[in-house]
Amino acid sequence: MFRPQIKVVDCTVRDGGLMNKWQFGDDFVEQVYLANTAAGVDYMEIGYLSSESSFSRDEFGPWKFCAEEDIRRIIGHNGDKKIKLSAMADIGRIEYDDIPPCSESSLDMVRVACYVHQVDKAIALAHHCMEKGYETTINLMAVSTVGPRDLKEALDDLSKCHVPIIYLVDSFGAFYSEDIDMLSQMYMSALPDKTIGIHTHNNQQLAFANTISAIINGTNFLDASLYGIGRGAGNCPLELLISFLKNPKFRVKPLIEVIEKHIIPWSKKIDWGYYIPYMMTGVLNQHPRAAMAHMESENKEKISEFFEQLTNSSDLL
Amino acid sequence: MFRPQIKVVDCTVRDGGLMNKWQFGDDFVEQVYLANTAAGVDYMEIGYLSSESSFSRDEFGPWKFCAEEDIRRIIGHNGDKKIKLSAMADIGRIEYDDIPPCSESSLDMVRVACYVHQVDKAIALAHHCMEKGYETTINLMAVSTVGPRDLKEALDDLSKCHVPIIYLVDSFGAFYSEDIDMLSQMYMSALPDKTIGIHTHNNQQLAFANTISAIINGTNFLDASLYGIGRGAGNCPLELLISFLKNPKFRVKPLIEVIEKHIIPWSKKIDWGYYIPYMMTGVLNQHPRAAMAHMESENKEKISEFFEQLTNSSDLL
Repeated sequence: MFRPQIKVVDCTVRDGGLMNKWQFGDDFVEQVYLANTAAGVDYMEIGYLSSESSFSRDEFGPWKFCAEEDIRRIIGHNGDKKIKLSAMADIGRIEYDDIPPCSESSLDMVRVACYVHQVDKAIALAHHCMEKGYETTINLMAVSTVGPRDLKEALDDLSKCHVPIIYLVDSFGAFYSEDIDMLSQMYMSALPDKTIGIHTHNNQQLAFANTISAIINGTNFLDASLYGIGRGAGNCPLELLISFLKNPKFRVKPLIEVIEKHIIPWSKKIDWGYYIPYMMTGVLNQHPRAAMAHMESENKEKISEFFEQLTNSSDLL
Repeated sequence: MFRPQIKVVDCTVRDGGLMNKWQFGDDFVEQVYLANTAAGVDYMEIGYLSSESSFSRDEFGPWKFCAEEDIRRIIGHNGDKKIKLSAMADIGRIEYDDIPPCSESSLDMVRVACYVHQVDKAIALAHHCMEKGYETTINLMAVSTVGPRDLKEALDDLSKCHVPIIYLVDSFGAFYSEDIDMLSQMYMSALPDKTIGIHTHNNQQLAFANTISAIINGTNFLDASLYGIGRGAGNCPLELLISFLKNPKFRVKPLIEVIEKHIIPWSKKIDWGYYIPYMMTGVLNQHPRAAMAHMESENKEKISEFFEQLTNSSDLL
């Protein structure tokens, strides 16, 4: 039997926007919204919650901000909202006062992303969002670079907070399934009263496989994106995840249609997916920023040169 | 500690050739050979053993045949051969008399590919090759379509033969890691005196992950190819596998170099890798031929149309 507790979160616009500064047209976002709704996806993360004082709309598209009027343009003329909407908040990029009460917002959930040293700030922000009426999660990023003592302390702190959902995030696409097995079990036992989520990256073509490993270990909130669109190597492909899951409410056909019409055209403009520079930062457990810079340069196919730069005098590879 | 019994088999030319009728130039094959040698890869599968009476050299490149003079052009002026060479033989496409004795050949290994109903023929051909002095394997294809009784009988027959290495082959890219776990264990217990091999396809982005699952379950012969080149969605990427394995003899740098110079140019001419039509045949556990035909047509980006064709009145998806 399928596990009804499993919820799927589409991150197409939010994580894909990291590749184009959220410069998606309203039609794109609306079509993704309609496809997710038709496919039975549980949540759509439509972007980041950021203060307008932190970033300029000249540089960044609307989904860096997720103002209520932006969201209304998408959902306003599509009848009742049948899917929950989420936005991600980064520590220090959103003023508390800029978050409207949930009763005045089309957002249902705020997901707070943080590094391990920001856990206290993340808990405070998430609690603030809960007080305003939102569902919340805390997404602890870059865990592949966190030592066991720091991780234990972070999980300890998280176990004492009121936030009900805590995410295991493989920001660098560095984990193998054995890592996911061990970490999922560690999260489950440190956070027995909470739901665990998984967010993977595809640097080593393991995003979908690692999501399955997390499911097997009891993880119930699953992030994915259409055709894997997302930063660097991208995410777990939503169409693969939906085809895998057994809940009969899911439909893959609307996803295929929106991939054809709206995602494949973007794949010709921005380079997410399996490319050797992203693979290398994944293998070396590094932030993808060097790989992204290389992929945006004129030398993007000079992968041996990038290999030399990255490994330098290291004998890791 | 790494497992010294693990052997890596590069299938770049053999499986990649399924996409271009083995029309690789000698320089390409030589550079792949030199890179594999420098990387510490154990075997390079250089093509198929086929009778010249079965196929025409006007249509097919040299690596459909692997005649001794073809192979000598590649290895002849490169000093001592430091990597073992393999060729694959399909049942009915090679006459016994066309196989030279191993002592007169540069090939070290012949791998016999067969479907479940061909196991007896495969054993006979493999035994013949053993008598001629070759190492041999039998690669039982398309196991994802074989029922439990037929599989049990095939493994029973294989357990009684002299061929030392038997491959689990996910021809359609349909398996999840749980399938690999179960089947690996079934192979290991039915064939306790034999070495088990794994050959995966990447339709669901699980080729590398499934290879790791097989390793964890005791599989010691691992197929892969440069940048995953191979039929349809392609294979387990060799550069990922070599980066994962712990044996200090392996080097990834020569693989990155040959990918840059010789594989990426091919990636612009032939479409292997993760494409939605290949994903669909994988999810539906079908031969990729319909997807390959679609990818070669003018409508290759009309993936919704292909979805309709493939699922027809089925409610599978």
